[in-house]
Amino acid sequence: MIATISRKGYFSASHRLYNNHWDNQKNIEIFGKCSHLNYHGHNYQYIVSLTGKIDAETGFVFNLQKLKNILYEEIEKIFDHKNINLDIKEFSSINPTIENVVIFMWNKINKKIPSDFHLKITLYETENNFVEYDGK
Amino acid sequence: MIATISRKGYFSASHRLYNNHWDNQKNIEIFGKCSHLNYHGHNYQYIVSLTGKIDAETGFVFNLQKLKNILYEEIEKIFDHKNINLDIKEFSSINPTIENVVIFMWNKINKKIPSDFHLKITLYETENNFVEYDGK
Amino acid sequence: MIATISRKGYFSASHRLYNNHWDNQKNIEIFGKCSHLNYHGHNYQYIVSLTGKIDAETGFVFNLQKLKNILYEEIEKIFDHKNINLDIKEFSSINPTIENVVIFMWNKINKKIPSDFHLKITLYETENNFVEYDGK
Amino acid sequence: MIATISRKGYFSASHRLYNNHWDNQKNIEIFGKCSHLNYHGHNYQYIVSLTGKIDAETGFVFNLQKLKNILYEEIEKIFDHKNINLDIKEFSSINPTIENVVIFMWNKINKKIPSDFHLKITLYETENNFVEYDGK
Amino acid sequence: MIATISRKGYFSASHRLYNNHWDNQKNIEIFGKCSHLNYHGHNYQYIVSLTGKIDAETGFVFNLQKLKNILYEEIEKIFDHKNINLDIKEFSSINPTIENVVIFMWNKINKKIPSDFHLKITLYETENNFVEYDGK
Amino acid sequence: MIATISRKGYFSASHRLYNNHWDNQKNIEIFGKCSHLNYHGHNYQYIVSLTGKIDAETGFVFNLQKLKNILYEEIEKIFDHKNINLDIKEFSSINPTIENVVIFMWNKINKKIPSDFHLKITLYETENNFVEYDGK
Repeated sequence: MIATISRKGYFSASHRLYNNHWDNQKNIEIFGKCSHLNYHGHNYQYIVSLTGKIDAETGFVFNLQKLKNILYEEIEKIFDHKNINLDIKEFSSINPTIENVVIFMWNKINKKIPSDFHLKITLYETENNFVEYDGK
Repeated sequence: MIATISRKGYFSASHRLYNNHWDNQKNIEIFGKCSHLNYHGHNYQYIVSLTGKIDAETGFVFNLQKLKNILYEEIEKIFDHKNINLDIKEFSSINPTIENVVIFMWNKINKKIPSDFHLKITLYETENNFVEYDGK
Repeated sequence: MIATISRKGYFSASHRLYNNHWDNQKNIEIFGKCSHLNYHGHNYQYIVSLTGKIDAETGFVFNLQKLKNILYEEIEKIFDHKNINLDIKEFSSINPTIENVVIFMWNKINKKIPSDFHLKITLYETENNFVEYDGK
Repeated sequence: MIATISRKGYFSASHRLYNNHWDNQKNIEIFGKCSHLNYHGHNYQYIVSLTGKIDAETGFVFNLQKLKNILYEEIEKIFDHKNINLDIKEFSSINPTIENVVIFMWNKINKKIPSDFHLKITLYETENNFVEYDGK
Repeated sequence: MIATISRKGYFSASHRLYNNHWDNQKNIEIFGKCSHLNYHGHNYQYIVSLTGKIDAETGFVFNLQKLKNILYEEIEKIFDHKNINLDIKEFSSINPTIENVVIFMWNKINKKIPSDFHLKITLYETENNFVEYDGK
Repeated sequence: MIATISRKGYFSASHRLYNNHWDNQKNIEIFGKCSHLNYHGHNYQYIVSLTGKIDAETGFVFNLQKLKNILYEEIEKIFDHKNINLDIKEFSSINPTIENVVIFMWNKINKKIPSDFHLKITLYETENNFVEYDGK
């Protein structure tokens, strides 16, 4: 039997939206207050969802304690209480929209999960704005 | 790369469930207290989800500020602090169940979104009752 | 020992803000879209809080099952799926602001509670707007 | 037109994770504090989602009042204020992980729903841990 | 200047309400399904609030990281994934209502806090039922 | 009659905790990851509560639409999508703990409110950490 198991995580970080190939005026036109020079920040929330077979012995799709440890190593240590633009080298050239951040998270976690699981990540920047990505 | 971006919105409205082709007794039998003559109301919440390609220049599937403006014009101005049965002419003959309301919302928003996006809307009448519709 | 025990309740109702002694223009000036003629509505939430001594035998300040029954009789039956202006006779002449509604609720519940308890009620019209009243 | 209608429900129960074919040490190694001998508990939340055609006369995919009654009979009466391992005979030999509990719930509810609806259930053990199952 | 700083915590536990001096019938009459023999459980949430002077050097009423450590030692290690009646010796003779549990928690935390702070604890058994206690 | 009316607001900002009179090592010792050089951020939530008499004509303690406008001018324009340390001159020398931020907010709002109202502000940095201040 196939089920999808999910674990929610949290991190607080700062960022600004900015395209290095554009001048300031175009950045403000497209990104508005999100491009503010001195950075702003969010309490990000994310949900990591794994779809796979239920193991008959454990009754688990995936051990959530193990998943929690993976999220600590791959997400929390890198993002929590950090500046996404300045502290994560990949985002020196990539604009940290929630779309680009969730793809980065997906690639990091997918490497730690056996290939017979399907991985989807949902990332909330605020309660009102969020994104889903599953590797396509 | 394909992702789904979502924006949450809110409106407060009154309504009553009622089928004009039935007598009062049958309306009460099927719709119970939801058919109460003088209307009742809800704080509706909804999530508009757009699936599409991530634009390489902006890092956006769709600019959420633009989406917020569309939701203000197409949803908030029509539904917020209104009586759905009396103030929206389409619902003089259509029963304002969450199913029928979400279809109406979907048709209005879908006209404002380029055709290469797939649109899904989730509508909450209360925390416990909600509906999803994606145009099928 | 003294503690405060609280129970949360819910009702969905419609209303409009309106002062009968003013003309339409003044009502719109003061109450804005909340004075809309055809009524709008909310999922109201409320918290009933009782402060009193902990009973040594039960370990209760007040039996929450009994309180739930009082709330059903005194609040839910009167407000749920109703129009506050039209269905509750006291509000034919009183403007149903959250301040006036919470005082009405407090008077109804306080009659059902022994006088050695202190009663406070918090009433939410939306997640963002709420009022507290404790009989003063 | 096809939509998905959902109803949220709640129950409070105790359980422990335990595989009868393993010794205590292996149970602790795999299930950690969740295998604690004297049981612990949760406020479970679940969402029952039905996908089907919208009925032209009622405007409903499925009458949510009827669904609420089914959930009371099939879920709340069996799980609420119970010990899952000791009070539900199927779980004397099945480990009550959220995966196994959601499958049990799905089988009970699916029998009460006409076959032209597609049923999905989401079960939350805590705000952070949850599972989805749709019969596959 | 005086402010109140608060930290929220969580634990999952099982319990049953029972007065040893009463027979089964009276326990069921007073406590209903909460007295179920095999225990049930909850995701408890609690808020620890400290009122005191703001320290000019740190800008803190109380260091929340230190408070988090106290809550881990005094609350989480004792209550999380435990059976309150069976695993905490004080509750072998005290009925674990939220009133009695919050007093027990208050006494444990108050010993770890300097006497120039005023301590209040709010304990949620469910989203709908909660209690506040501040040592009176 | 006296009641307390409350309005919730939101802003997203970045900050870092830092005492200019201490060296880096002492700042890390006391503030931990909150002192990270490149700033981190939060979705702040706050509740502004006004206690006063209910006006007989309007049924309001205070017009919440007016209060919303005050919060936009005094809080949102200053804090939203800003860096508290760099963009608000008072915090160039004051450490932006939630205690110091809530006092700053209280002083700004209290100037705009007639003196016969009692003002309290609650400020949430995360769901788990928050502070209350009422001018004492």
